[in-house]
Amino acid sequence: MTDPLERRFRRTIPDGDDRQRSVCDHCGFVDYENPRIIVGSVATDDRGRILMCRRAIEPSRGLWTLPAGFMEAGDTPQAGARREAREEALADLEILSLLAVYTVTRISQVQLLYRARLRTPEIAPGVESLEVGLFEWASIPWKELAFPTVGWALEHHRHSIDRHDLPPFTNP
Amino acid sequence: MTDPLERRFRRTIPDGDDRQRSVCDHCGFVDYENPRIIVGSVATDDRGRILMCRRAIEPSRGLWTLPAGFMEAGDTPQAGARREAREEALADLEILSLLAVYTVTRISQVQLLYRARLRTPEIAPGVESLEVGLFEWASIPWKELAFPTVGWALEHHRHSIDRHDLPPFTNP
Repeated sequence: MTDPLERRFRRTIPDGDDRQRSVCDHCGFVDYENPRIIVGSVATDDRGRILMCRRAIEPSRGLWTLPAGFMEAGDTPQAGARREAREEALADLEILSLLAVYTVTRISQVQLLYRARLRTPEIAPGVESLEVGLFEWASIPWKELAFPTVGWALEHHRHSIDRHDLPPFTNP
Repeated sequence: MTDPLERRFRRTIPDGDDRQRSVCDHCGFVDYENPRIIVGSVATDDRGRILMCRRAIEPSRGLWTLPAGFMEAGDTPQAGARREAREEALADLEILSLLAVYTVTRISQVQLLYRARLRTPEIAPGVESLEVGLFEWASIPWKELAFPTVGWALEHHRHSIDRHDLPPFTNP
């Protein structure tokens, strides 16, 4: 197989396949352009306040989101969700159960969002956040949410408070 | 941004990142090598027998698996799980709830396995299967399973028969 850095791709339908792919002319490697996995959490402190981050980066710079990001090769989803909260909010989380599996087909994303709790009350903005905060339900900045799935996850969290054994929610 | 077919990659740590990536020298595109998502199902007929497929392709050619495969861009996980059963077993499934989320970090896979039921009793091998079958628990070919996660999913199915509201299982 050709070194990945040396591949030369063209678009073609591989034998036995049903759609066009990018295929390496040298070695036949097929780039399947798989959907990407976002891992994140709805994390609460001991008063039930929800950890949110105001984004310092595009897309949706300046708007509020939950700690979440692309799962890395070699991660588990839970480890990835912990890492994202550490990077974006310098927060130390215990990951609990799976809250929701959302699909955003337009951008080929699957989002795995976990229930979590803050192990310690300290939070602070990481390099990808302008600020971070712990929000009571009534003070969530609903009009400044970065993505639709943030609102979905907040509502689904609300419907399953203290019920960690519920099956995960899906797109509303 | 450079046409994907024209990209020339080298390994480097992008600004603000913490690990080496393949980055295009022309346009700065970063290939994050995200984990890939497998979608599949434990599908049963009206007698509770489980649909399995004997693989006609590597890896694990000749061994038995559940209908499953790579999620495609633009799919939902449920649609992907239905498509894989149609392709591998010419089976028409109704996808029910999420049975399990497994992570195979060694090969950077996340597997989303759904409970499902056969809408019609007709099944037949697709091009990726040597044969297909409906198995009672006692007749499952335990010594000829293609992958460890097949055994995990069968056991987790067994523990949640008729309980579609359970939260998904994770790696045992």
